[in-house]
Amino acid sequence: MRTLLFHCRNYRVKIDRLANRPENISPEEVKEKDQALEDCVVALITIEKGDNLKVNCDKLVKEIEIMCKEVSHNKVVVLPFAHLSNNLANSNDGIKAMGLVENELRKKFEVLRAHFGSHKSLLLDIYGHPGNARYREFYD
Amino acid sequence: MRTLLFHCRNYRVKIDRLANRPENISPEEVKEKDQALEDCVVALITIEKGDNLKVNCDKLVKEIEIMCKEVSHNKVVVLPFAHLSNNLANSNDGIKAMGLVENELRKKFEVLRAHFGSHKSLLLDIYGHPGNARYREFYD
Repeated sequence: MRTLLFHCRNYRVKIDRLANRPENISPEEVKEKDQALEDCVVALITIEKGDNLKVNCDKLVKEIEIMCKEVSHNKVVVLPFAHLSNNLANSNDGIKAMGLVENELRKKFEVLRAHFGSHKSLLLDIYGHPGNARYREFYD
Repeated sequence: MRTLLFHCRNYRVKIDRLANRPENISPEEVKEKDQALEDCVVALITIEKGDNLKVNCDKLVKEIEIMCKEVSHNKVVVLPFAHLSNNLANSNDGIKAMGLVENELRKKFEVLRAHFGSHKSLLLDIYGHPGNARYREFYD
């Protein structure tokens, strides 16, 4: 599992169309075509083949909690992102992991969960302070 | 070497302050504090320990050329980015690689080169079409 965490002034996402790659992808049902949030931590998350979902999702949630505390915001975007690895898990595991992360974060934060399985336009307006961007890899 | 390529409607960068980590970092001289570009390919580039700079920079330039051709734009942002790997090269190699990529791209494209060795606010306004975001790893 790999993640890129950004402290964002503004975030927007808009679904362009459903993805049809990789071949076996199963997009989720689309509930919201557009989403936006201000002053939040945006987590771009890539689930990889062989990930221990429970263990690595717990590690990810801890990193997000640390960052939220440091930037003094309680809003988080959970964004499935297929572009931090060439070793992607299947979509079942991807969707399952997003659910684990989302549900755990909802206990403490306001969470916006982006759609899994679509091409999206994306606005990332990222603050400039040290620690604004953090890369993490989780291998149990 | 790892890279994340985005097809951006808008891009802006503003230097917040010089970086003092990792310990041995040597920031470049600051020539422009703010930069902006529209309708361009933004390349976030992470140089890693052990990279064969010439070989991997050539591979990166080829990928950028392919993407520019596909999205029909001739503007490229070369953005040093320390957040795609935990195995960063030293800053001498990082700066050298950015120069190689920049000089090669300038033969064909309008190039905006972001500063190496600073914390920056960053605006990425990314188009939503398939192929808008591409992740590549280069290991010779």
